[in-house]
Amino acid sequence: MSEAADLLFTNVKLATMVATAADGYGALEDAALAVKDGRIAWLGARRDAPAAAATHDCGGAWMTPGLVDCHTHIVHAGNRSNEWEARLNGASYEDIARQGGGIMSTVRATREADVDALLAQSLPRVAALLAEGVTTLEIKSGYGLEFAAEERMLRAARQVAQRLPVRVATTFLGAHALPPEFAGRADDYVDALCADMLPRLAALGLVDAVDAFCERIGFTNAQTERVFAAARALGLPVKLHAEQLSDQGGAELVARHGGLSADHLEYLTPAGIDAMARAGTVAVLLPGAYYFLRETTPPPIAALREAGVPMAVATDCNPGTSPMTSLLLAMNMACTLWRLTPQEALLGATSHAARALGLHAEIGTLEAGKRADLALWDIARPADLAYAMGFNPCRAVVNGGIVRPPHITPGAA
Amino acid sequence: MSEAADLLFTNVKLATMVATAADGYGALEDAALAVKDGRIAWLGARRDAPAAAATHDCGGAWMTPGLVDCHTHIVHAGNRSNEWEARLNGASYEDIARQGGGIMSTVRATREADVDALLAQSLPRVAALLAEGVTTLEIKSGYGLEFAAEERMLRAARQVAQRLPVRVATTFLGAHALPPEFAGRADDYVDALCADMLPRLAALGLVDAVDAFCERIGFTNAQTERVFAAARALGLPVKLHAEQLSDQGGAELVARHGGLSADHLEYLTPAGIDAMARAGTVAVLLPGAYYFLRETTPPPIAALREAGVPMAVATDCNPGTSPMTSLLLAMNMACTLWRLTPQEALLGATSHAARALGLHAEIGTLEAGKRADLALWDIARPADLAYAMGFNPCRAVVNGGIVRPPHITPGAA
Ligand SMILES: [Zn+2]
Ligand SMILES: [Zn+2]
Repeated sequence: MSEAADLLFTNVKLATMVATAADGYGALEDAALAVKDGRIAWLGARRDAPAAAATHDCGGAWMTPGLVDCHTHIVHAGNRSNEWEARLNGASYEDIARQGGGIMSTVRATREADVDALLAQSLPRVAALLAEGVTTLEIKSGYGLEFAAEERMLRAARQVAQRLPVRVATTFLGAHALPPEFAGRADDYVDALCADMLPRLAALGLVDAVDAFCERIGFTNAQTERVFAAARALGLPVKLHAEQLSDQGGAELVARHGGLSADHLEYLTPAGIDAMARAGTVAVLLPGAYYFLRETTPPPIAALREAGVPMAVATDCNPGTSPMTSLLLAMNMACTLWRLTPQEALLGATSHAARALGLHAEIGTLEAGKRADLALWDIARPADLAYAMGFNPCRAVVNGGIVRPPHITPGAA
Repeated sequence: MSEAADLLFTNVKLATMVATAADGYGALEDAALAVKDGRIAWLGARRDAPAAAATHDCGGAWMTPGLVDCHTHIVHAGNRSNEWEARLNGASYEDIARQGGGIMSTVRATREADVDALLAQSLPRVAALLAEGVTTLEIKSGYGLEFAAEERMLRAARQVAQRLPVRVATTFLGAHALPPEFAGRADDYVDALCADMLPRLAALGLVDAVDAFCERIGFTNAQTERVFAAARALGLPVKLHAEQLSDQGGAELVARHGGLSADHLEYLTPAGIDAMARAGTVAVLLPGAYYFLRETTPPPIAALREAGVPMAVATDCNPGTSPMTSLLLAMNMACTLWRLTPQEALLGATSHAARALGLHAEIGTLEAGKRADLALWDIARPADLAYAMGFNPCRAVVNGGIVRPPHITPGAA
């Protein structure tokens, strides 16, 4: 460095998450890390540390890249604990649908909420993630299903990053479910989405990526392809809810479009794996939904590993199938339920999650030049992050070089 | 009340957890609750509230009894994330045993720790439980397996209650595993335990109840019975790790001794259920261990419900089979994995958990005369407590009438 660093983290153990043959965590013990202008300027052995205007003694703690939750529906109104409770008390899905339950109840509540109401309900959930070292968060739309409500969701998502210390990547998921106004006319809805809703939202700068729910109960492969074509015409990257409940060829479809990620993947086929490996599409694993829905078919983890497909892990935070606001718990579930290693789980919440958002040049590993988004942990070893259930060992979080305590109370606007 | 109350909680919704035909939560909305001398002096409709020296406006929050975690091994040294990681990387149980892993690694680490070291490692785990509204906690010994180390564990457990705002019930679990000194001589160890270790620890006032691990890999039914006889001779109540991995007739045994609880119970038989129902022995359900060990045989929930056996839910916090420090997560797992209703899960973490500790006259429900151990929650309805995964909606906790914030940092001694 030509000038002194702004801040030096010292007496720290680094899990760089840069792959090395020797150590999956890219660990560097008795280390230091220097920050300049909000970016990592240098890292290495403590004894070689450069001069800095200020020093932060980490007391021997472990440092990882700030965690990245790369698949959430965290902006929404209401929850669905009432229908969950009704189910556990013996109500059938039909009973609940008759009472207006299911995703449409979240759509109704979200359509009724203005941006401030969406924020008031969503910020405590975001703060829960942030307390565990999350520094980047993906937020999808998809409970509005009409222009104005989708716009409010995306504006709320953008405002999350103004209200709390977190980077937000927005994803337009207009093709999440068929709105009641278009019952029986899915192709007409996709027409409207492609010709009107998406271009207008993109023109407002509210859309970082485009997603769809390709499933028997969602949109067909052909409809999804039209959404992707519209996205690419606007220069937007795509990703997909694929193969969660059945094989719809979604992974091949999104890979063919150079997609950032295919997400869920319980019914992924060998052909889908091949296509993802060739395209560099990340497999985003969502064990919270698998657990909460009591699914029994796991994604083909061993085959994904074998094929070298990067695997990310995310919360899928949503009120219907994964009311989860702990990325550490998602990591534990990925290991416990699907036998990821703790190292794979941590890669999945850092480096590979950054790749699933197209942000791997900026974040996701500890490397000089990347943004200084960091998490400090009171743990004996990196595996502790995935091992504990319901324990938060986060000691401090760093956003662009600014140190903050883990727990933040979302304040008034 | 003859005199004014000390403190009135008002503008509150009460989940009294007192069974009523109409509502499993015993809910009372637009209510108030008065505290006098650390106990609940009155509760009822807000408009009928008595005079009080001070008022706490709860802002419409829900109030429940303080949560009770009635089965933990939370005092211990070290963790076992290293062997968990080795297993996930392909090591066999034999590999790990050869490297000195398993419960004996925790026994070694715990034997080497003094009371202060045990506390330093355990208090952050306890604080995690307390942040979620836990006001009473059971703590077992059982990683010492020799007098001095068991004594240190129990002293550390007692000191937890001096260092943090929580009531602690201690359980002597000397019959947890066979210490290496007694290899091949389990009956000799049980002799020493009954004749020497237990009476001395009881004389020191360190033992509130006595437990054992009755299992093929633990102690036999006959050995367990000798432990129970020794406990009862000292006037101590008993409980049992029973039927976790196989049917050993443990539930009938502990019921025959009027036991407080039989815990785990995956392999519980109809005869065991009958015996528990007749004796009033609580079924303590531990879904964290079932989940973490990927077991597939659930406890007979429907039969327990049918027989009217009270069901409690606990974390089983321990480093080998349930590294869990969230009672709310245990409640979610009980519902998700075993189909308890959210109301049963909350009863299991309040009223029935208190009964499993023999403390139901003191705590576990909102009733006049009981200790004012309370939790306040920012939730829409009581089901939210079990529904969310990794979200802590606790707004404040009350210990004996004293209001505290959820998060407490364990300070120096
Ligand atoms: Zn999703
Ligand atoms: Zn136990």
